[in-house]
Order: sequence, then structure tokens, then C-alpha cells
Amino acid sequence: MVVQDDLRTLIRDIPDFPEPGILFRDITPLLGDAAGFARALDWFAALPSARGATAIVGIESRGFIFAAPLAAHLGVGFVPVRKEGKLPHAAHAAEYTLEYGESILEIHQDALSAGDRALVVDDLLATGGTARAAARLVEMTGATLTGLAFLIELGGLDGRALLPDRPVDALITY
Amino acid sequence: MVVQDDLRTLIRDIPDFPEPGILFRDITPLLGDAAGFARALDWFAALPSARGATAIVGIESRGFIFAAPLAAHLGVGFVPVRKEGKLPHAAHAAEYTLEYGESILEIHQDALSAGDRALVVDDLLATGGTARAAARLVEMTGATLTGLAFLIELGGLDGRALLPDRPVDALITY
Repeated sequence: MVVQDDLRTLIRDIPDFPEPGILFRDITPLLGDAAGFARALDWFAALPSARGATAIVGIESRGFIFAAPLAAHLGVGFVPVRKEGKLPHAAHAAEYTLEYGESILEIHQDALSAGDRALVVDDLLATGGTARAAARLVEMTGATLTGLAFLIELGGLDGRALLPDRPVDALITY
Repeated sequence: MVVQDDLRTLIRDIPDFPEPGILFRDITPLLGDAAGFARALDWFAALPSARGATAIVGIESRGFIFAAPLAAHLGVGFVPVRKEGKLPHAAHAAEYTLEYGESILEIHQDALSAGDRALVVDDLLATGGTARAAARLVEMTGATLTGLAFLIELGGLDGRALLPDRPVDALITY
């Protein structure tokens, strides 16, 4: 796919970050390239799972970079999923597993309600732990999850196997 | 100002967060309100300091929520300023003071260059420490700082006294 191949040239490989043996996909050149950033956002906006969404849920913090413009473009609300202790009001919490232990994501309990249809957005689908936690948080609010969308998917980690039976899309797969 | 007063009703006061004695201004109801979020973004886009900017610099992580849509709207690049150790490539670093010690913000050295004109965006101007660090980071890249813009300013803390001689704007002042 031409768009994917072009955008791939704007992603920089950083070996051994954040630790030895990890090949980090640095998206900052893409973000800094106005045309590249616009094309990535256009891709999110054209997803079927974005249609009919009443809210876009972004996962802290790089997910915010795609979720917030998408919400603005679609004319719907933006809902942050944040790390434990960052949200100031009553929150639902979901645990997820990292390579080096457990961590917790939260969503405000009143951020979404039963009538809402929410798309979860993040920059990266790796093992699927954070995305699964975000999906569970959406469901705890009573809202309907319309799908999950990512700029990048690390296909070899099969993160989508962890995710609920909803559309899962990624623009660029490694 | 009508817009400011209206948007103020979408900001929720949370006493004693994140610690006793602090009145936290919770912007999540504004973000979740499509019309409110759009009006806040329109305000950023109409700032004179946004005109002619070649990049929008967002401060992690709530700053991303306004900076990324603003960059997309203006058709320019988005540049993240992140907490220490998060950016994977060669970075400039600037220290800033928190109530409870020092912390460090970073920017990629190649994120901006001498020809760039950059607007720094964050959700909140409080003591000015993080904003000043972000301004210094922009200047370390050789780019020109066109201004700093915030959704909220806590006027009593006089954070703008710390900032460089550039336009400093806030939509809502407490």
C-alpha cells in the first residue's frame, strides 16, 4: 500500500531502546512532518469504526497525539485513559501486564455512558495489554466499543489476540 | 468574555488533588464535550502567535491534547516535549523545579531547526517552570519561539513572569 510505504520512511528505528534487544519505532519524524501527520490522521478518520463513534478514547500519552485530532476532526468528545492516579475524579481501573510487572490504567466513570459508542486509539499495538485494559475500561462505563485503531502494529507479538471481538486496525505493520 | 465564561462551566473543581490544599482544575468534562473542545481549539488556532508557526510544540501529556489538533488544523508538524528518558533519539534537556524537587524535560535535537517558528502549547500555566523549560528547549534547537499558549492560567502564581519575552496567552484565567 503506497500510503503505508511512504509513511514508513518517516518512522525511525532506534535499536536497544528503551532497553537492550528492543527495536523502538520512533514516530517523531512522522509527527513533525505536516504531510505525513495529516495522512496518518486521514487514515484514522476514514476507518469504519470511527463512523458513528460519539467519543474517541486516547491512551496516555502518545495515543493522545492521534486521538485528540481525530475527535476534533469528527466533531466528537475526547476521553483520556490515563496511568494510575492521574485522573482526579471517580475512576474505573484496569490492570495490565508489562514486561517488568503490572500497571494500571484508569478512565473517569462519567467520561462515557450507555449511549456512547467509543473508538480506542493508540500509537502502537504491541503485546495488547494496554489496549485490552482500555477496551475493558470503555466497557466498564457502559459504553459500546466500536473498535481499536493504531498507527503501528507489531504483528509478531500478536497483540490483537488479546483484544475483544471488535474491528482492530493498524496503518503500518512490522 | 462569553466564550471563556461558557467554557469555564466545563471545568470541574477537584479540591485536595493531587494533594491536600490544591484545587485541581479538571478539564476532562471540556474535552468530552465536542462543542467545548472545538471552541477551545478554535481559540488556539486564532492566536496571532499561531500564525506563521511552522511547528506546534506540545508538553507531555495533557499539552498533547491541544497541541496535536492545533498542528493538524494549521497543517504544520507536531513536536513533543517529553519527560526525561522517553524520547529515543539525541535530545536536549532542561531542568525545571516542581514543588517537590527537580525534574527534566527533553526535546529531540532534530525536531526543529533554525528556520522553524514554534508555538509552545500546554493545558495549564501554573508556576511557569515546565513552560519555561519548554521554551528553553525550543531555543536550544535554534528555532524561533513565537509564543506560548495555554488553556488555563492560574494568575495568582504569576508563571508568566518566568517566561521569555514572547506572547503568552491563556483562554481561561483563575
